[in-house]
Amino acid sequence: MSKEIERKFLVSSLPDLSEAKKAVVRQGYLTAPDDSTELRLRQKNDTYFLTLKGVGGLVRVEREAEITADQFETFWPETEGRRVEKERYTGHLPDGLLFELDVFSGDLAPLRLVEVEFTSEEQAKGYVPPDWFGADVTADTRYKNKTMAIYGVPD
Amino acid sequence: MSKEIERKFLVSSLPDLSEAKKAVVRQGYLTAPDDSTELRLRQKNDTYFLTLKGVGGLVRVEREAEITADQFETFWPETEGRRVEKERYTGHLPDGLLFELDVFSGDLAPLRLVEVEFTSEEQAKGYVPPDWFGADVTADTRYKNKTMAIYGVPD
Repeated sequence: MSKEIERKFLVSSLPDLSEAKKAVVRQGYLTAPDDSTELRLRQKNDTYFLTLKGVGGLVRVEREAEITADQFETFWPETEGRRVEKERYTGHLPDGLLFELDVFSGDLAPLRLVEVEFTSEEQAKGYVPPDWFGADVTADTRYKNKTMAIYGVPD
Repeated sequence: MSKEIERKFLVSSLPDLSEAKKAVVRQGYLTAPDDSTELRLRQKNDTYFLTLKGVGGLVRVEREAEITADQFETFWPETEGRRVEKERYTGHLPDGLLFELDVFSGDLAPLRLVEVEFTSEEQAKGYVPPDWFGADVTADTRYKNKTMAIYGVPD
């Protein structure tokens, strides 16, 4: 299992994104948070997935199948109120670090979040973010995609 | 909406099924009975479906998509303990009436049920079943497929 070392920030102002790669991402839950199973629809550009996750227990089952756009659209209406819709821009910062910038639409607009990926914890701790970054929300679980799908943007 | 007039019986002994049409049917639930949504996988011979049903409320949403065998098999293991597996034989009785005979396998074996379809309530009420039929369980909701998927064969 690979370990990701990331920090997550709000975004004060959008940077120049002309060199960034853009993807349309939609994900939504067919099940409610208290249900015994989690079923998630996810679109990334022209690929679509249905993912089942077992809830609770030590070992959490995960099963995923690629689905067609038609299959996705058949069930998507039932995710209403439990969605994350965003454009994801992936690129490199001037110092070479990889960033993923999410510009949310739908119920979560106008929220924007940016994540930076590091190669070591030392690098992550010593990191000085660029001017366009806002508050560090790395430890704030309210900004998790799944949490926002249900509870919306934190106050 | 068409109205079905049917009676359901246990089966004392199997009749000659050489003229009947046989179908392999598997259905199973990805969700538990108390969940806010019902997701059902269903196979009939070489066709496979995923069906979502809203739970409760006056209007119950239903959305269904045909899926591939691979997609079916990806999620099927998660229906364990909530399955109906059977061979369905469809044919005509000597008096011309249509019957559907279900021979259950898996957890519900060796249960067998037969349903007869009528064109009027009078015909249904006056019906004298053939010798190979057992007890009439038309009104016994424990013999519904969905109920048996969860609770098993009635004692």
